[in-house]
Amino acid sequence: MKVVETLGDLRAVCGQLPRPLGLVPTMGALHEGHLSLVRAAAERCHSVGVSLFVNPAQFAPTEDLAAYPRDLDGDLAKLAAEAVDVVWTPPSDEVYPPGFQTWVEVEHVTRPLEGAQRPEHFRGVTTVVTKLFHAFEPQFAYFGQKDAQQCVVIRRMAADLNFPLEVVVRPTVREPDGLAMSSRNKYLSPAERRAASVLYRALTRAAEAYQDGQRQAQALRQRMVETLAAEPLAETQYVSVANPASLEELDGPVESALLSMAVKVGKTRLIDNWLVGDRPLGG
Amino acid sequence: MKVVETLGDLRAVCGQLPRPLGLVPTMGALHEGHLSLVRAAAERCHSVGVSLFVNPAQFAPTEDLAAYPRDLDGDLAKLAAEAVDVVWTPPSDEVYPPGFQTWVEVEHVTRPLEGAQRPEHFRGVTTVVTKLFHAFEPQFAYFGQKDAQQCVVIRRMAADLNFPLEVVVRPTVREPDGLAMSSRNKYLSPAERRAASVLYRALTRAAEAYQDGQRQAQALRQRMVETLAAEPLAETQYVSVANPASLEELDGPVESALLSMAVKVGKTRLIDNWLVGDRPLGG
Repeated sequence: MKVVETLGDLRAVCGQLPRPLGLVPTMGALHEGHLSLVRAAAERCHSVGVSLFVNPAQFAPTEDLAAYPRDLDGDLAKLAAEAVDVVWTPPSDEVYPPGFQTWVEVEHVTRPLEGAQRPEHFRGVTTVVTKLFHAFEPQFAYFGQKDAQQCVVIRRMAADLNFPLEVVVRPTVREPDGLAMSSRNKYLSPAERRAASVLYRALTRAAEAYQDGQRQAQALRQRMVETLAAEPLAETQYVSVANPASLEELDGPVESALLSMAVKVGKTRLIDNWLVGDRPLGG
Repeated sequence: MKVVETLGDLRAVCGQLPRPLGLVPTMGALHEGHLSLVRAAAERCHSVGVSLFVNPAQFAPTEDLAAYPRDLDGDLAKLAAEAVDVVWTPPSDEVYPPGFQTWVEVEHVTRPLEGAQRPEHFRGVTTVVTKLFHAFEPQFAYFGQKDAQQCVVIRRMAADLNFPLEVVVRPTVREPDGLAMSSRNKYLSPAERRAASVLYRALTRAAEAYQDGQRQAQALRQRMVETLAAEPLAETQYVSVANPASLEELDGPVESALLSMAVKVGKTRLIDNWLVGDRPLGG
């Protein structure tokens, strides 16, 4: 496994790797969710690349850029135990050198949900992912469904801009109590950690109602809202039943839907989601 | 020479072409300026691709999209006489299908000069060029210096987004009287066509002053303004002496500069430019 910092070194290594290459873009602080993406890439591709980069452009000034967990040695040890060929750990000014001024923006699907709460977040994501795609030139790129809107946005961007690759979305990996794995789970106190499983319970209660034949978007939303309201440590930011491709909020009867939510547990902001029906994210 | 319309067909052809591939993006209505780019690509690359696409996203509603000259048969005949391997002539909805919503934006260098007069123009250019780069996956991409700001913008975008290719800028090709070749020259009446050489005369008068030791930006600007003012059919939109990398307007003594202008001759808007000093465009 080669570990490189500069773009030039990365290109030199990638130029020698057999194709197809699968890329797993990460912000580090790796957990089983990331590793499941690495394993999916290794299964399908002849080479696997991983990026470890806490991308300042996707954090608002009020957000947790400085506090975001970093563990380069631990991350590299985890990746060395997997079938990873190359890891890019660029310094910030290798990605955003002085004079940097180009942005990739997706319009409609970035507006609701996370985009409504974090206005420049997705511009930072799409710009850095474009740079990663050009740096690794992968044939497949792997993202976790836990960041469902990100998956929709990246798929939209890849299609709109003719990126010559396939965006693969893999299932959310969960703790035994259902909490979606996230690097930010480290912020939770023990009591908050127990409370945090309420997101999963809210999603599964709505999904069960759907399984039982409930098709009214407002009723599904209500199940989630009520479940979250019963947890005193949880403060709901939004609860959504949306079109899985356009992310437009749905009313009335639904066939396919993305159920999603953002909830503060103490000071930690958590997101989670669940797909009901047959329609894939961004599909 | 293969001529294809769909992205899928283009990818199938490009996948078989020996590399490096040189791409010449055009809006058709080809003249010797375009053909000089094709020849430069053929000299350096094992394969040459050309796109013919009048890009609606780079025209404002008030501009000449509908009137822009189109001559597909003539263009293909000209390209068939050169060492061109593949030509992409996509219909508009192949490039901008329903639901399209992703844009590439370069900030600072798009703001002055053409950008000040045509606010969304460069967003349309950078977005379509990104799509062309992803569609052809060229190692070299060729642009004419006649659109100097476009060259700076594309170079900035390619560097900022890590595009794995080299942007090559080739000299402006001119008519015997100095008029820069442009598809829009067809709009000129005979009297306007004679008047249109005033852009070249203005540039060369300023460049001669520079050669003679004149280094004051304001004096160089003044030479251009005066020359243009002497032509009754010319209406100056801007005259600029700018930094060739940042495109910021210069004052006081200059070593390298981009001299540029936009001038209406009758209803036709013409642009032209000249580099003095050693600094390349966008370099």
